[in-house]
Amino acid sequence: MKIGRQDERSSAISASNADTILVRGRDLARELIGRVSFTEHFWLLLTGALPSAPQRRVLDATLVAIAEHGMVPSVQAARMTLAAAPEALQGAVAAGLLGCGSVVLGSAEGAGRFFAEIAARTPGAGGLEAAATQRVQEYRSAGRAIPGYGHPLHRGYDPRARRLFEVAEEAGLAGRHVAIARAVETLLPQLTGKALAVNVSGAIPAVLLDAGYPLAALKGVPLLARTAGLVAHLLEEQTRPLGFVMSHAAAEAIDYDGPKPPGFVPEGGDG
Amino acid sequence: MKIGRQDERSSAISASNADTILVRGRDLARELIGRVSFTEHFWLLLTGALPSAPQRRVLDATLVAIAEHGMVPSVQAARMTLAAAPEALQGAVAAGLLGCGSVVLGSAEGAGRFFAEIAARTPGAGGLEAAATQRVQEYRSAGRAIPGYGHPLHRGYDPRARRLFEVAEEAGLAGRHVAIARAVETLLPQLTGKALAVNVSGAIPAVLLDAGYPLAALKGVPLLARTAGLVAHLLEEQTRPLGFVMSHAAAEAIDYDGPKPPGFVPEGGDG
Amino acid sequence: MKIGRQDERSSAISASNADTILVRGRDLARELIGRVSFTEHFWLLLTGALPSAPQRRVLDATLVAIAEHGMVPSVQAARMTLAAAPEALQGAVAAGLLGCGSVVLGSAEGAGRFFAEIAARTPGAGGLEAAATQRVQEYRSAGRAIPGYGHPLHRGYDPRARRLFEVAEEAGLAGRHVAIARAVETLLPQLTGKALAVNVSGAIPAVLLDAGYPLAALKGVPLLARTAGLVAHLLEEQTRPLGFVMSHAAAEAIDYDGPKPPGFVPEGGDG
Amino acid sequence: MKIGRQDERSSAISASNADTILVRGRDLARELIGRVSFTEHFWLLLTGALPSAPQRRVLDATLVAIAEHGMVPSVQAARMTLAAAPEALQGAVAAGLLGCGSVVLGSAEGAGRFFAEIAARTPGAGGLEAAATQRVQEYRSAGRAIPGYGHPLHRGYDPRARRLFEVAEEAGLAGRHVAIARAVETLLPQLTGKALAVNVSGAIPAVLLDAGYPLAALKGVPLLARTAGLVAHLLEEQTRPLGFVMSHAAAEAIDYDGPKPPGFVPEGGDG
Repeated sequence: MKIGRQDERSSAISASNADTILVRGRDLARELIGRVSFTEHFWLLLTGALPSAPQRRVLDATLVAIAEHGMVPSVQAARMTLAAAPEALQGAVAAGLLGCGSVVLGSAEGAGRFFAEIAARTPGAGGLEAAATQRVQEYRSAGRAIPGYGHPLHRGYDPRARRLFEVAEEAGLAGRHVAIARAVETLLPQLTGKALAVNVSGAIPAVLLDAGYPLAALKGVPLLARTAGLVAHLLEEQTRPLGFVMSHAAAEAIDYDGPKPPGFVPEGGDG
Repeated sequence: MKIGRQDERSSAISASNADTILVRGRDLARELIGRVSFTEHFWLLLTGALPSAPQRRVLDATLVAIAEHGMVPSVQAARMTLAAAPEALQGAVAAGLLGCGSVVLGSAEGAGRFFAEIAARTPGAGGLEAAATQRVQEYRSAGRAIPGYGHPLHRGYDPRARRLFEVAEEAGLAGRHVAIARAVETLLPQLTGKALAVNVSGAIPAVLLDAGYPLAALKGVPLLARTAGLVAHLLEEQTRPLGFVMSHAAAEAIDYDGPKPPGFVPEGGDG
Repeated sequence: MKIGRQDERSSAISASNADTILVRGRDLARELIGRVSFTEHFWLLLTGALPSAPQRRVLDATLVAIAEHGMVPSVQAARMTLAAAPEALQGAVAAGLLGCGSVVLGSAEGAGRFFAEIAARTPGAGGLEAAATQRVQEYRSAGRAIPGYGHPLHRGYDPRARRLFEVAEEAGLAGRHVAIARAVETLLPQLTGKALAVNVSGAIPAVLLDAGYPLAALKGVPLLARTAGLVAHLLEEQTRPLGFVMSHAAAEAIDYDGPKPPGFVPEGGDG
Repeated sequence: MKIGRQDERSSAISASNADTILVRGRDLARELIGRVSFTEHFWLLLTGALPSAPQRRVLDATLVAIAEHGMVPSVQAARMTLAAAPEALQGAVAAGLLGCGSVVLGSAEGAGRFFAEIAARTPGAGGLEAAATQRVQEYRSAGRAIPGYGHPLHRGYDPRARRLFEVAEEAGLAGRHVAIARAVETLLPQLTGKALAVNVSGAIPAVLLDAGYPLAALKGVPLLARTAGLVAHLLEEQTRPLGFVMSHAAAEAIDYDGPKPPGFVPEGGDG
């Protein structure tokens, strides 16, 4: 790698020589290791600058909020993969992360875009409800779900979302995106006939965008956070193997309804 | 697994007991192994029926056409991954397949939808050009590229596409979708000002849809085919390690243009 | 890519220019597409030569044998991943392949090495039983399982293994490795006190090594074959979504036994 | 999920109901979000207890040390994957993580096992050098490289390793494993004839094991840390696309030396 001007053949993230590793222009060994937290380092990697203490606090809160929620599909996929391929922990983590898609954990990204679109139409604080109403109606006309609301288990409210809003307030960083997220929550019953509370995937982008976290990296938060949860599950899987137990239960839940020869009685299968 | 009626808890693909494995209702050991080719088995798995000889020939031709094209990004990713993680061939194959996305190999799927949309608007053979013209213009109005046309290396024509159309003709299966693919090729210069030939990702869906292959499984063809190419590259990588050589060359091509302390001269890095 | 001499910066798999794509020295469009089957092409990619008809038949048989066996862990992981991330079929396939590891599908590779080690110690046909006995005892002394024997569902015999041996005989390619696989089956009761039949992951390497398939690419057969099965399941998942159903059943099968506040009653979770 | 006793059908990581999410027995919303850092939460997830301040500091230091080192193979694989499949950020992150294997980033795990084996043979501080000498010689007899020493770029010393040892000293947690890592460094010239300094993959397990971090989760540190670096690179890739630039340079570095028809001149390829 050679130092050059900013064009399509350049990166601004890291460079090194025998003595020094630069990360975003800072000396990794002398300025960062032992001096900044991993969360601050993540913010630095993404933006080129270290976060303020309130920014760090909000980012920490979102990472803690989304790291773990029990035996969810991505955890199951990871544990089953480790059971079948114990030689490659990285493969099991990768299998888990591949389930951070548009429907489950990646919905934080969709919610972030939704809030940002409303914010872009709101010059002052005044027009916020009108802009939110308009955008909700556009989504509904297009047959799109409003991202970031409702949860199959946390029906009344999502305790993580409520707490994230509190943390943003405490940090002095709750701003327009949090206001929009709350305004939409208030508007939903009249606009859709259904009361749905902000969920964790709605609260995360609201507080992060208000904190100045980059919109295009929103999905990075559930991805990084779930890696921590996946590693914990895979450590447990090594001593308490549950992958095949879960797979057996899952297979039992599914019937075969294809053609079959007379007298054939299935017994299950394992590969 | 229990046998049941067709609902959301059922699958029609496979069931087994101690003596018998059924695949799509057929006895795997007695009716399929040694009696059908892998390509026929793939068609059976997807559709529930064995292909006719012409259908099998067209599917074979598409799989052969897209299996390999040299040191493309997905092959590089796979070879670099094996160099770093030789304990897990499956991880290197997975890394390669993850690059079969909407821009590169998955474009066969986008082209298939495009042709199918035009076919759906064409009641008889007569209106085909009108429907194609309309759909091209809609794509262009929406700022979308026409999928399945043009290739950075095979500029005049893509030899794989031309050959696939020949095979479809020989098999007696060239129908409406091939006609649409060709009609669009003819229309492109006047509609877009640019002459672009059908590429392999346009020809594959055209001949497969005419052969009765399911639209929703189109991406499965490049995925399956590239797995074969990836395995070949990973076999070669074990005796001719190129992963780090390629990585070094790639790193050399990129400059660092972030901030740096006075006097810092980068030398490259490898992790 | 430039043509050069054989060294560590060269690959012998593919090269191309605007008019021609070479695969293993053959013109892809003129010599391969529409003329060879996908299975023949896979063999060519791996070895540089097209297979004989008996070699092709044996390879087809192994690919058909291992492509599909119901709702196994890797299929579940793939279907759960597609349910959560429907935008990326390639991610769901990758998640499934990551479970082709040393314990489940990759065991064909371990069995192949085991047979090859015995073959290497057997100068003529005579000493085969002695060499097999010795190697089995070495594995047992080292606490290693004998790879390629026994199956939790197909306990008496694995119908796929029996059929693969038949196909190898019919093709005239059953040789030393099949003899070794059978000899070990016969020896196991007296050497280990347990009668275990050759399973599909034992039969696949035995017949492939006898057919001249390369040892270092053995894992490529389950990887390629399961890709076909995974694509079929993911096509079904698009119209019959089972991923979340299976995940729910799997989560229900697991209890929480960590610390909990008084009065806490869990209800399950989904992320 | 139901609460039960500790057996093979139980997990101790998380449980939830409509109002409360427990993580390792603590109320996620009331006790963790906004109160603990992500690094503390990761330690809690892994071990069931929050770390002390010195433990947290050491874990932060290792995560910061290994998160980023420029255009390494796994970053290249991730950026190439995003260029080809921009619809799935999670797929690009997964492709990058799959390269955290035994040779590159996963070597921290191998080094950790190596240090732990020496520690297990060292009853008091006295026999440390003898145990280290013995284990180094065993590795060399078996033809195994000593994991955690030497770096192609940081030849004299790895600045990250030196700094991690400093941080461990400052935190009051440098103990037996750090002593072993240093003793081996001192012994290597006489035992192997080659002076190789501890690298970052040697220092990470030394300081983490001294801090009480679990051995079986060592690979989780580079996996979690690199996820942060990968997300930063993928954010940059969205505005500064380098994936295809790097792929082109890598392909140019490789020659084709397979058979070719007379007059064939290759031009490169891109899929």
